[in-house]
Amino acid sequence: MRNRQWLLKTRPHGLPSPGDFELVESELSSRDLKDGELLVRNRLFLCAPTMRNWMSGQANSLFPVQPLGRPMMAPAAGEVVHSKHAAYRPGDRLTYFGSWSDYEIIAPAGGNVSRVADDMSLTEAMGPLGLNPQTAYFGVTRVAPPKPGDVALVSGAAGSTGATAAQIYRLLGARVIGVAGGSEKCEWLLKTCRLDAAIDYKNENVRDRLKSLCPDGVNIFFDNVGGDILQAAVDHMARRGRIVVCGQIASYNDDATAEGPRNMMRVVYGSIRIEGFLRSDYLEHVCEAVGRLREWMARGEVVHRIDIRRGFSAAPAVFADLFNGRNAGTLLIEVDIKS
Amino acid sequence: MRNRQWLLKTRPHGLPSPGDFELVESELSSRDLKDGELLVRNRLFLCAPTMRNWMSGQANSLFPVQPLGRPMMAPAAGEVVHSKHAAYRPGDRLTYFGSWSDYEIIAPAGGNVSRVADDMSLTEAMGPLGLNPQTAYFGVTRVAPPKPGDVALVSGAAGSTGATAAQIYRLLGARVIGVAGGSEKCEWLLKTCRLDAAIDYKNENVRDRLKSLCPDGVNIFFDNVGGDILQAAVDHMARRGRIVVCGQIASYNDDATAEGPRNMMRVVYGSIRIEGFLRSDYLEHVCEAVGRLREWMARGEVVHRIDIRRGFSAAPAVFADLFNGRNAGTLLIEVDIKS
Repeated sequence: MRNRQWLLKTRPHGLPSPGDFELVESELSSRDLKDGELLVRNRLFLCAPTMRNWMSGQANSLFPVQPLGRPMMAPAAGEVVHSKHAAYRPGDRLTYFGSWSDYEIIAPAGGNVSRVADDMSLTEAMGPLGLNPQTAYFGVTRVAPPKPGDVALVSGAAGSTGATAAQIYRLLGARVIGVAGGSEKCEWLLKTCRLDAAIDYKNENVRDRLKSLCPDGVNIFFDNVGGDILQAAVDHMARRGRIVVCGQIASYNDDATAEGPRNMMRVVYGSIRIEGFLRSDYLEHVCEAVGRLREWMARGEVVHRIDIRRGFSAAPAVFADLFNGRNAGTLLIEVDIKS
Repeated sequence: MRNRQWLLKTRPHGLPSPGDFELVESELSSRDLKDGELLVRNRLFLCAPTMRNWMSGQANSLFPVQPLGRPMMAPAAGEVVHSKHAAYRPGDRLTYFGSWSDYEIIAPAGGNVSRVADDMSLTEAMGPLGLNPQTAYFGVTRVAPPKPGDVALVSGAAGSTGATAAQIYRLLGARVIGVAGGSEKCEWLLKTCRLDAAIDYKNENVRDRLKSLCPDGVNIFFDNVGGDILQAAVDHMARRGRIVVCGQIASYNDDATAEGPRNMMRVVYGSIRIEGFLRSDYLEHVCEAVGRLREWMARGEVVHRIDIRRGFSAAPAVFADLFNGRNAGTLLIEVDIKS
């Protein structure tokens, strides 16, 4: 079968552009399959901001490194076409750590492949019940669960992960302030997500707004953004406040690294906790996360937006939308293979 | 009675020098006492590195600010001379938040005054069982208790707080690496404190030594120093490693603030926790801390050095020794009043 692939050609400086990638076509045959492997047809890719970090190829043992000249790695959903693995059959629907290709060969090992339940669409598995909402769920419930009345501040609050985190905080009894860019996103946070307040960082002074919204300080800061918003939050944390470091999107397109707090003595004197985490720390609890998210969403208590873009050939351009604020919710690429 | 006081005259830039202080003498009378107050005779002052932060007078609601023209605030021990408080009588021995004065008036409130047990000397109460070892105890047992086999790295390990933290980690089953300046201190850490390894940051490359001592990374970093050692540790933490931020002495004499990690994505991808704390977060557990420290010390399992300097008039010069590595253990000033 003919197989399109988007290869990473050059490591991007700043915002990744389509010119950093190369679209190639080759042949892929089920004869290439080895024992224990699956040939899958990709249907959906998740555009996750952290993929930008993979592209940088920094020597860092904790970080996946995207090889140059290879198809761009991406969380994917699709179905089995051929199987040389006893546990999988053609037609099985899966999510996995894939790559920007029409078809690819994967080897299930160590939790990199998950089955999609019969009553769930691939879109649900990648969107409302996918990696981002699961990440939000674990960050809130495991890293910094709220006490009733806590002030929870969420940055990137209109994003896929942030919006879910903010709404879970609301459900668990916190008073929630979302930070997002632009009045439209802030209005969505207030009206649809029913947060207590929203700060438009593009048009408002975050520090001033924090002072007036919560003079006693922030108890929990769920950070997807980093940079200036992180500094403002550190300076405005209440004693024994907790900062959940989920992402640092503000710096992903810089060649520099994402800087942490510039005043560690506030961390000491405020008895502040700063904690990074990955969804994969909680793999054994994914069923719980999916179950609770599903229930909340069915009852309308957590809303989720997906922004689905059709067309494999636009993948690099769609990905760039993550960083210019042009996406509205979980950004998915739908692969347009004629089957 | 004649009363000497060391007033802070100017906010120091860099290392505090005796020229930043002024020695004055005045009269203090028990007639100045108001209801609820005590007139105490100061016997011992603890030189605590964080007092340097108080001197900076930064506007920071979490930070005690030393007023200019007032006697330098300091943790102190002494005895009651006159009392207008029903719970205290002349001769009662206390530790308290005092100031560099022969005599002073204090008002017991909110845990700022503690009684010294009958079987304890003032020196014990300020040294081996005092604020620094208590701080170490809570940092280890409450903020980042070890699992057996954990690698615990301690900076400022030959200091008053660090040495106690390092030994408690050893007692609780961790493999302990101390960082200190100079071969003499490192030898003391190995031979007397029985740590597993010591790194002399003045003569060795901390990053290289960490790589060879613990190729699988550091599980717990108890940080008293900050700066380059903190950066090296962040880059060398094992997954789900924990950093206890106890102090950041490397930057106390800078006009700049103490900078945190320069690479927050390591914090995310490593699921690293960074947590500041104060001894005062655990006031209700002080008896437990003192009891266990005392038992460990009586059995020789935790050793403690005090460096006691006699003479009120040398207080500012003695304090400066905290920052040039010239102190050996808890630095105390003994007040030389002829009684």
